[in-house]
Parts: sequence; C-alpha cells; structure tokens
Amino acid sequence: MTVLKVKHLSLIFLGWILIALQIELTLADRSTYVVHMDKSAMPKAFATHHDWYMATIDSLDVINVKNSHGLGSTRLIYAYDNAMHGFSAVLSLEDLQKLQKAPGFVTAYLDKIVKLHTTHTFEFLSLNNVSGLWPASNYGKDVIIGLLDTGIWPESKSYNDDGMTEVPRRWKGICQAGDNFNSSMCNRKLIGACYFNSGAKAGNLHNESYGGSPRDIFGHGTHTSTTAAGNYVEGVSAFGYAKGTARGVAPRARIAMYHVAGTIGAGSDLLAGMDQAITDGVDVISISMGTAWTPLYEDPMAIAGFAAMEKGVFVSVSAGNDGPYPMRVENASPWLLTVGASTIDRQNSATLTLGNGMSTTGWSEFPANALLEDLPLVYNKTFLACNSSELISQASGKIVICSEKYGYIAGQIQVVTNSKVAGAIFITNNTQYMEARGISCPGVVISPDHATEMINYVTSTTNPTVTLKFQQDVLGAKPAPAVAHYSSRGPAQTYPTILKPDLIAPGSKILAAWSPISPAAFLGSNIVLTSDYAFSSGTSMACPHAAGVAALLKGAHPEWSSAAIKSAMMTTASQVGNDGSPIRDNAANLTSATPLDMGAGHIDPNRALDPGLIYDAGAQDYVNHLCFLNFTRNQILTITRSSKYNCSNPSDLNYPSFMAFFTNTSSTTYEFHRTLTDVGDGLATYKANVSVPCGTSISVTPDTLVFSEKYQKLSFNMSVDIKQMTKVMAHGSLVWEQVDGNHTVRSPIVVFRKS
Amino acid sequence: MTVLKVKHLSLIFLGWILIALQIELTLADRSTYVVHMDKSAMPKAFATHHDWYMATIDSLDVINVKNSHGLGSTRLIYAYDNAMHGFSAVLSLEDLQKLQKAPGFVTAYLDKIVKLHTTHTFEFLSLNNVSGLWPASNYGKDVIIGLLDTGIWPESKSYNDDGMTEVPRRWKGICQAGDNFNSSMCNRKLIGACYFNSGAKAGNLHNESYGGSPRDIFGHGTHTSTTAAGNYVEGVSAFGYAKGTARGVAPRARIAMYHVAGTIGAGSDLLAGMDQAITDGVDVISISMGTAWTPLYEDPMAIAGFAAMEKGVFVSVSAGNDGPYPMRVENASPWLLTVGASTIDRQNSATLTLGNGMSTTGWSEFPANALLEDLPLVYNKTFLACNSSELISQASGKIVICSEKYGYIAGQIQVVTNSKVAGAIFITNNTQYMEARGISCPGVVISPDHATEMINYVTSTTNPTVTLKFQQDVLGAKPAPAVAHYSSRGPAQTYPTILKPDLIAPGSKILAAWSPISPAAFLGSNIVLTSDYAFSSGTSMACPHAAGVAALLKGAHPEWSSAAIKSAMMTTASQVGNDGSPIRDNAANLTSATPLDMGAGHIDPNRALDPGLIYDAGAQDYVNHLCFLNFTRNQILTITRSSKYNCSNPSDLNYPSFMAFFTNTSSTTYEFHRTLTDVGDGLATYKANVSVPCGTSISVTPDTLVFSEKYQKLSFNMSVDIKQMTKVMAHGSLVWEQVDGNHTVRSPIVVFRKS
Repeated sequence: MTVLKVKHLSLIFLGWILIALQIELTLADRSTYVVHMDKSAMPKAFATHHDWYMATIDSLDVINVKNSHGLGSTRLIYAYDNAMHGFSAVLSLEDLQKLQKAPGFVTAYLDKIVKLHTTHTFEFLSLNNVSGLWPASNYGKDVIIGLLDTGIWPESKSYNDDGMTEVPRRWKGICQAGDNFNSSMCNRKLIGACYFNSGAKAGNLHNESYGGSPRDIFGHGTHTSTTAAGNYVEGVSAFGYAKGTARGVAPRARIAMYHVAGTIGAGSDLLAGMDQAITDGVDVISISMGTAWTPLYEDPMAIAGFAAMEKGVFVSVSAGNDGPYPMRVENASPWLLTVGASTIDRQNSATLTLGNGMSTTGWSEFPANALLEDLPLVYNKTFLACNSSELISQASGKIVICSEKYGYIAGQIQVVTNSKVAGAIFITNNTQYMEARGISCPGVVISPDHATEMINYVTSTTNPTVTLKFQQDVLGAKPAPAVAHYSSRGPAQTYPTILKPDLIAPGSKILAAWSPISPAAFLGSNIVLTSDYAFSSGTSMACPHAAGVAALLKGAHPEWSSAAIKSAMMTTASQVGNDGSPIRDNAANLTSATPLDMGAGHIDPNRALDPGLIYDAGAQDYVNHLCFLNFTRNQILTITRSSKYNCSNPSDLNYPSFMAFFTNTSSTTYEFHRTLTDVGDGLATYKANVSVPCGTSISVTPDTLVFSEKYQKLSFNMSVDIKQMTKVMAHGSLVWEQVDGNHTVRSPIVVFRKS
Repeated sequence: MTVLKVKHLSLIFLGWILIALQIELTLADRSTYVVHMDKSAMPKAFATHHDWYMATIDSLDVINVKNSHGLGSTRLIYAYDNAMHGFSAVLSLEDLQKLQKAPGFVTAYLDKIVKLHTTHTFEFLSLNNVSGLWPASNYGKDVIIGLLDTGIWPESKSYNDDGMTEVPRRWKGICQAGDNFNSSMCNRKLIGACYFNSGAKAGNLHNESYGGSPRDIFGHGTHTSTTAAGNYVEGVSAFGYAKGTARGVAPRARIAMYHVAGTIGAGSDLLAGMDQAITDGVDVISISMGTAWTPLYEDPMAIAGFAAMEKGVFVSVSAGNDGPYPMRVENASPWLLTVGASTIDRQNSATLTLGNGMSTTGWSEFPANALLEDLPLVYNKTFLACNSSELISQASGKIVICSEKYGYIAGQIQVVTNSKVAGAIFITNNTQYMEARGISCPGVVISPDHATEMINYVTSTTNPTVTLKFQQDVLGAKPAPAVAHYSSRGPAQTYPTILKPDLIAPGSKILAAWSPISPAAFLGSNIVLTSDYAFSSGTSMACPHAAGVAALLKGAHPEWSSAAIKSAMMTTASQVGNDGSPIRDNAANLTSATPLDMGAGHIDPNRALDPGLIYDAGAQDYVNHLCFLNFTRNQILTITRSSKYNCSNPSDLNYPSFMAFFTNTSSTTYEFHRTLTDVGDGLATYKANVSVPCGTSISVTPDTLVFSEKYQKLSFNMSVDIKQMTKVMAHGSLVWEQVDGNHTVRSPIVVFRKS
C-alpha cells in the first residue's frame, strides 16, 4: 500500500481556522506520481513530448484503459511542458520501478497536496492617483496576473470591465466552460478562466478540491484575485464595515484564474495550472497556497516557479499561516517572492457611549446593525468570567461586562452568543483574536486601560446605561503594520541560507470580493451569513497584494527581471510602523519584529518604483547557488528541466537580503558576494552603512560604490564574523546610501546559529 | 380627581404591533383643556388674542405662577390663532366653571391623546418620467408638504437637497434648535422643522412623546415624510430587500416637519403644530395619527383641518389601524382625505431550491444574508407543529418543515428562532402575518399548493436537501393592491353619513427612511437591528402617499380647492387589482373588498390629473351639512371659529361618494343632491351609469349632463330606495361616463341600515 503523507493544512479562512487535517490516501496500491523527464532525451521518433510520455507509460507492463474519449491512457493525468518537463500519472510501485529505467527519466515523487494560504489597503500602501506607482504604471494597464487558486465567482462586480481596453493580442488563454460556468463569463477584466482537477480526482481529493469548473465555491480565489486586480466597485462593505469603493492593488491589470484547488488541492493540478499560465502569457503569478515544507526538487511551487522566472514571469507566493513558531515559512524558493502577512490600520469598530456621555471606541465586527441604545449596563463580579450562558442570562436584555482575566475571549463570545443578554463588553489586551476572527454576539472589545473609566462609572452610578454602535470604521489604528501572529516565520527549513519570508504585505481583515455561497460571518448561535464582499485574513491575502505591486512595477519597468522587481520591493520596504516605532510583532506582545518575521519589511510600492540599485539574478545564477549548496544533478534537473545549466561556477546568490546561517560545524565567518546594478539616473555614489547585529563583526569591501552610468554593475563582499555572538539569532542591516541623493538600498542581515 | 380617558392606541410599527396602551392621567385635580373662544367677542382693549387669553386665565380665581422666563402664566400651554381660536391650559374643574362664564367662551374639552397610525410604490402607482402626473406637476416642485408627526432624522440621505431650487419666499417656517438638533439642519428639501411638546409635558406624556427637539427617535416621522417627498437616494434597501433608488411620491416637493408626538402625543400639541403649519404656508398637510372616535367638535384633526381647508391647505389623514372590525375608521371629517391602506405588489422573498433542482419562491424578510446551501431537509411529522424548540433541535443544523395547520405561524417562528435548526420552511396560506410583520429566523413561507411538490420530494428521497436564498425582491406579486387587514373600516362612528375611508393607498411593507436609533427588525432570539431605511406598515404609511399625490395635483392644478383635489383622487380611483379581479380584502380570505373597506378604491395618480368632472365644496358647504345634521351653534363655532358661517341653508354635502345611512326610524328613501363642475376641456356630455346595490332601487335625475364650457356646474339628484333590501349593507356605484370621450367619473354608493 502506498501511503501519501498529507501535510498539515492550516487555512485562515475568514478568521475561522481550519487546522490540522491529516488524512491518508490509498488507491489500490497505486498513487499519483509527478514524473520529471529529460526532454532532450526524447527519441526523434516522437512528434511531441505528449506522445513520448504516453508511450513511456504504455511501455510499462500495466493494463492500459483508454478513457471514454479515446484520447489516451487514463493513467496519464497531465503532460507538462512549461512549468516542468514530464507528466503526472497514476502508478504502482512496480510501474515506478520500471519507469525509473526508461530513457529520459529524471525523477518521480508522490503528488503533493497543496493548501490555501482585500480594500482600504491601497490607501494604507499610499497608492494614489497623483504620484508614485499608480500613475507611473498606468494602474497596471495590460499587465496580466494569473492566479492559481480556488476559481472565481464571475458575477462579482469586481470583475466588471468598465474602463478596460481590448484584451492584449499576446494573450493565449481561454475561458473554459464547466459546472455552472460558461465560456462567455470572461471579459476584458477577467480575461481567462480554466480548471485543473484531474490530479484531485486521481487522489480522491475531489470533494475537498471541487474543480469541475473555474467557478469558486469557497471565496478564496475570488478574494485573492480581486485583491490583486479587482476593478472599481462603489458602495461595498463587509456587513457594514470597511465601507467604500473596492479596488485591487492594480485596478487596470487583467485577471486570469487557474482553478487548481478547493480547500486543498493536488500538486499535479497546480503544476498543470502553472504550465498553462506560462503558455497563456501571464506576466505575474500569484499563488496563495503551499505544500508545506517540501524539498525544492519535489515542490511544484519551486519547480514551476523556476520555469516562470526563466520566462520573465514574476511569481508571488504566500509564506503560510503557521506562525508564530519558527522555521515554518513555506514556498521558500529563492526565485519566488515569499510574502508574509501584516495587520493594517483599519480597525473594525463599535463605539461605546456610557450614560454619562463618556465615549470610547473598541474592536467589533458584529455583522449586523444591532441596536443597543441606552441599555442597562451590568457589572457583576460573578459574571466577569462569562463562562455560563445560563448565569449571565440573569441580565437578560442588558449588557454585561466580561474580562479575559477569567477566560479566553473566544469562549466568552460563545457564551454571550448563546445567552439572553442583549450584548457584552469584553475587556482584554488580546489583539491576536481580533486580528483574524469575528464576533457572533453584539459586543465590543476594549482594553483594560479604557475599561477603567467604565468600571468607575458603572460602580458609582445608580442606573448605569450604555449605547453600542456597530459598523464603525476606524482608520489610522496603531500600531500598523504589525506582523500578523499567524504569519509563518523563518528561517526556511528547506533552504535556510536565503532569508525568508522576503517581506510582509497587508493580510489581516482584508476586504475583497467573495463567493456568495461560502460562509462570510457567523451571527447568533446558529446563523451563518454570506456576502458579496468579505473580510479574510492570512498570508493568502498578503500574497496578491505583492503580486499587484509586482504587476504595477512590470507596467512601470517592463524591462526589469523578476529578480529586479523583487529586489526593488525588498530594498525599499519599510521597517517603521505608523506609531513611529519599529514594526511590531502581533504574536509577541507587540515587541519589535525581526527579519525572520517580516523579511526586508513592509512592502512600500511607491518607493519600489525607484530603488536606485538592484540585486539582479538570472536562471544560471540560481543554478550556481543550487550547485554551491550541493544539490545533485538530478535534483537540479528536476527544477531546471534543462541540461543547458551547469555547475561549473557554484556561487553565492545575488540576493537582496543576507542570511548568515551557521551550523555547529561551520566556520565562524560567513562570506557574501553581491553585485548591484544601477537602475537610477546613472552617475551616483553609494556608501555602505551597516547596522551590526549584536555579537558580530561585519566588514563590507569596498564600502563605497561609484556608478558612472545606468545599468552599470558593481560588486562588493560582506564578511560576517560571529566569534562574540552568544544568542541564537541576531539581526542588523546593510544600507547603501546615496551620497547627495535620495536613494537608500536596504537589506536585512540575519545571523543565525543552528544549535 | 379629573380622569382623562385615554383611547386605545394601536400602532403598526414595523409589523410589531403595540396594542391597547390604557392609562389614566391625573394631575392634582387639574387637567389640560383645549378652550375655544369666539375671537369676535374680544374686547378692543386687548392688542392681541394672546393678551386676551392670558387675561381670561388670569381672571380665574387661581394662583398664577409665572414661569421661569416671566413670559406668562404657566397654566397657558398654547394660544392658537389659525388652526382654531382659543388656547389650551391646565385648569381645575372650578377654573373651568368660571371660564365658561367668561366673555367669548365657546367650548372646552379635555386634551386628547393622539396616536400614530415607503419605495417601489411610485412604480406601483405608475408614476413615471414620461407622462402623467410627475412631469405635469414638475414632480411637485415648490409645493410644501407639512407633516405632523414624530419629527425627522435630518441626517437621512432622503433629505438631501440635490436638485432642489431656492426655498420659496412665501415660506415663513423656521428650523428650530432643540435636543441634538441645531437650526442649520434644514436645507432646500427639509425647509422647516419645529416641535411642540408643552401639551405632552402638561399631560405627563413626556416620555412617550419625547419632544424636546424636531429630531425623530422613533422613525415614524422620518418614514412618512420621506414617503411623501423624500429626495432620490441610490442604493438603499431594508436589510437587502427592496433594493433600489428610494424617492418620495413628490420627489421635488419640500418637507416641513412639525414634531407633535412620540409613540403617542397630546391633541393640544397637534393643534399647535397645525396652527403653526397653516401660518408658515404649507400647501399640503399629512397627519398619520388620530384621536380615535372623537366627536368632530372635540377632534383636533377635524378642527384644525377645517381651518386648513379654509386656507386652501389640503389635509391627508390616516384611517387608523383598527381593521378589520367595522365602524373603526378615524379622522372621518368630511373636509379631510381619510386614507386606508393597501398591500403592494412587491413580495419580500426567498427562493427555495430542492436537491432535485425544483425551485419556488416564498415570502421571507429574514434581515440578513443567511447562507443555507444544500442543507439536509427534514420532514418529520412530530416536528410539523414546530411548537417546541427542544424537540426540533434534534434536527440541529438542518432545515425543518412547519405547517400552520398545527399552530399559529408567529409562535412557530419564535420556536424555530430559539432552536438549533439552521432554518425552516413554513407552510401556510396566512397572508395577514406576512403583510405587516417580520421573521427572526432564517425561514421562508410557502403556500400548501407549493408545498406539495416539496413534500413529494422529501418523502421519496434518501438524502433530501434544500437551498434557501434570502433578500430576493419579487415584483408583480398578485393580487395587489388588496385592502390591508389592519386598515380601519367604515362606516364612521362619528359622522356616518359620509362614506369613509375615502380611498386606499400603499401602506404595507413600505420602504422609506428610518431613524437609526429605532428598532427596524429582529433577528435570532435576542438581537434587535436598526437601519437607515426600513419597512413599515400601516395607514400611517398610506396617508403620506396620498399627501404626495395631492402635492403633485397642487403642482399641476394650483387653482383647485382641497375638495376638488379630493374629488379628482376619488372619482378616478381604481377598483381592480393586478389579477384583473376586483380589489380584494386581505382580512377576508381575499374576497372582494367593499367601499367600507376601501372607499372609492385605490389611488391612481395619473388618472387623477385629468378627472373630467369634480364634486367641489367650500367652507360654507361643509357648514351647511353640519347644520343639516343638527350640530349645535357652539359645536359649529368650535369647528369654524367664526360666526361668519350660518345655518340658513342646511343641505346635503357635495361629496364624491354616496353613503345612504338608514336607521330604524328613518324613511326608506334617501335623497342626494350633487353638483358637478367641468374641469375637462369644456364641451362634454356625460351619461349616468348606475350599478345598483342589491335590494335597492336608484334613480338619477337628470341622467344626462351636457356641459358647454369649462368650469360650468350642473346638478343632479340621486334617490335610493331600500324597500327590497334584506342585508345590512349593499353597495354599487354611479359613474358619469363621457359620451365620445375618455373621462369616467365614478363614485361608490353604499347603502347601510343601522339595526
């Protein structure tokens, strides 16, 4: 029996977390394998790679059942050509052994299960119509963003194509009909839609992956795609919160949806979707899902991502929602942008006004316009724990006070929801709950500081009353951004020598379009609500923000490579929150976040437009680094698909951040070699300014770089010594500061000692 | 001790009926009296009527306490000059006896308590931009509608003044500051706002009448005023139902609000408001409240209404919500338009789709976008009564079926609301419940006919499922209009010789603006919701529809008297519903309604623009009829305020409907004398077409009227004989049909024998 080990799936889904789905799949001793082939080894007798793969499978001593359309072996699931070279097929172990001897065979691994990892954020990111990246990129006009996700709800107003010009001629994608979906549902905004579910079917994931159509029954793909590039829609809100005009980060970019997953999906389907997206001609790919901590050479994201990078397609991926534990970051390939999640400065709120007129604002997201006007306020010490619906129902029709000193807020909310009280005020400093979850009873959450005044009032007044007013939007809430508590943290298990995540982008309580047949909020003890627009939280929501910014940068700088775009985003990212302090970590009592939490920092689109210098890299550079890290030939070929790359020059990777990863056995000195390209105005002098990590010493040589023309490249070395370092981790930064100019090119430095 | 007998107050308020509030007021042996004075008897020594009234009160041998502002006796509440002549004051019985001997005293009676009786309806009334009353009246431009009600919520978007021209110079009203209200809150749409609460204070009605401000904390006045003349507001709905652009019947008319009541109010305040409205220069008055069945000469509505009529101000009043019992119609003065309520053709709906794809639509108004997608459907005979939350909770998370065969739907809804089921399907033919009330659980109501298919499915399928989709608007629902079950029915107790109500207008489930601090819907077991726009049902909602139409007619025919406008509305009203059958009565299993239910029929604004002929009447005509009915001189003076009217010519009233009201002692023949005025094109011949009430014989003399010029008046007599009549009531009609022309001038005939 072949056992497919399925990864832990965590999915932040509207704040209601689906955790740790562990299943074992068996299929009559057969399983789906993804098989990599060396296309250069294809005998000339075959007209196409597809024929060759078919013949290869046919040559296995297995019963071959033609499918009903007579189109080929039912065992062949996909033949790939762009995202990878090879195919996926249902094979027994015996088949596999035979296959390994077939000409051109590179490697095979069990199909992976991928898991899924919204619109004030454009303001929060300072995107505006006057200056910066929006006008410079013409709002992403004609850039095509392909999303590998759960599909789209095509009727969403966010896919309207008002103001969109003709679809670019270079576009080769289709609008594929399927269940409840017809091929006329695409337009000038939603230019492509197709689905890939053969792998899910073969792996019996069909129910979880629902994929007979590009249609999104989960909301996830509708949310991510409209976050990246939704058109303008006036008058939207999520149950009265975040009211305003929705729009994507790149409102004039095009959307192409590759439906490859449901709540989970098959890696073989993801590969097929990537294969198609690259063929179709997308410019940017956004993937808000992952296969957990898979080695690069078995990770569809890494493999297909390499192919995309080669073709100049930028790929943004989500870091995962396994924070705040260390070493959980996913999708950590060097050629992908790995995006962590941040909180934003919009607090979904309710105002609380006491009978004496004193007023404060707290968090609430109660999904209806509840009327709680001048109701009796009850402060009863036996109620404070709010751990019994029956007990607090003694205050039927009144508003009770609950304190998290006596119990977890999630339980308290449930108790109040099931009781007869009219509403509740929850006192807590717990920001993690509010960051990603909802509230099913009419209630507001305030901090102990704000509660003091209220408790004084309620204990000194004969008939204390309170008014709660819901559906209030508070902008400018501090501190923001902060690293979301769930955002997966570095270092990467699979590739720890590159700092991951690369950066953070808005991910918590993002408003975007939703599938109206998927839950969007919970109300009362048993009412599930849905909506055309909803909040969702996760690195899944951060990833399309970065993809949208990448699309804008592509529009502004069509000549930039994927590495250049990534470098521009990273070296201009922000490390300071709206309270003027370093960006905080919501999982660590709002202490300062480290680069292992947020990479280079918080994405800053307008600054990324003009980074001054970039750390560029091409396909061979990545291969050189794989060689440097002692990847085998086969592992490298699995990723690169082509023997045109070689290991003649193993080297450091020209990455825009620095991860000095020490083991017990390594030297106490780590050498980086980097090259900067001038993408500014030409003539410019930069001086290195190092913020040295505690307990280390750092030297940069040379420490001054004098560029004489645009696109000139200059190299430097940085040496990190840890002889004095006592802690496991220390961090600092290298900033190349322009002399007599405005550019600063910042890279985080992390020094990590694996014990 | 003086006992003020307060009437039963019934108020249809969002479908949640507040019934039978009976209180007794005592105030240290003193009460508020409304005192009518003969102004012509005022001694010349007094500069103003106010001085005279003050002196009159001072002359009473009572302790006079100057109020804190030193402005006069605290006993004087109001001095009136337009709506009536006289004052209201707090008096003991002893004071009263003295007062009765004072010069100029006419009458005095205890202050009355008034009780309170939305926007697809413009379409339902066929108002359109192309032809008919809207363009003919310029949408009511510059007509001023005064509402006597619970105030306004000035921040409502429906009071925006986009597209409104300068306030007419003739306008004398003010924007009065008060609690949470400042004088800058008026604009070109809401041109006036003031409040009158002294009577309520004196009667200790303050809490119920909240009136320290023009602000509306109840929603009622906001709803009625925006129904009459709200400006255009896009994208409104009531919890997702009735989505669209809200607008009043006369979207370019002005609104002036006279805040005179809360949930109840004092007649003295109402009189003060009317007094002010007439002074300020309103053109139309709408009053959605009443004092129940008060004799005309003690009824503030009748008294002030007479004064308004004299000044050419049209007054629309609600018939009351005491249906379907006979003889409960209120506000039945002949010079007022008494408006009953109809249902409309919009059904707030949910769609129900079975697992086999069969689909139907039922009633629902669940106030949220509940998600009930492919849930198990449970048909369990022990559940059908839905009379135990605990029992049906066995089907937790599923959808149960309830049948009204086994219990009243209101109770069943409550049981489901308190249970753990995900939702319910209610089977009933009861349309009365749905007409004016809400639903607090996710559920849909379908008829037994539609249920057959569902029961076949659920009993023959292994895993039956159902999907419910809420917030669906169904237009064209049949039959509509129907007489609302709650609409008060004739004949009038106080004045039975005039058929009342006069007509019906949309009153059930009207969408209009609302006060966001007042309940607008109920959800789950203990959640109260509010909204900026809400449904409300009642004759309170019908009245401003008629007022709006009157404003449009004033705009189109500024020369018409109040009686002419009323005649035009009545003789053109419709008697046929959208199913092609006579208008039905929702309180009588949808059998045909009679003129005692609906007067002349359902208002038809475009036809009222061009009625052909009108039954006109002036102040002296009404007085003549009061004389004919043997009202005393003092009673008449109380109403008319002026001895300029005399009883020299007691006569029938030239009314656009016919009420032959027989008593045991009266003759078996009833004679009507009427005069028609040609308001058409001049030259026209009309022939009488009588539909004879069962068991009666009728003759019309002459039966042909030949008009030779516009404004010519021609008279006729109609004689009704009841020798053959066996029933208490019979009805028919007299239609003057134009020969070789399109005008038909219809009047209902009701023959009533009081046993």
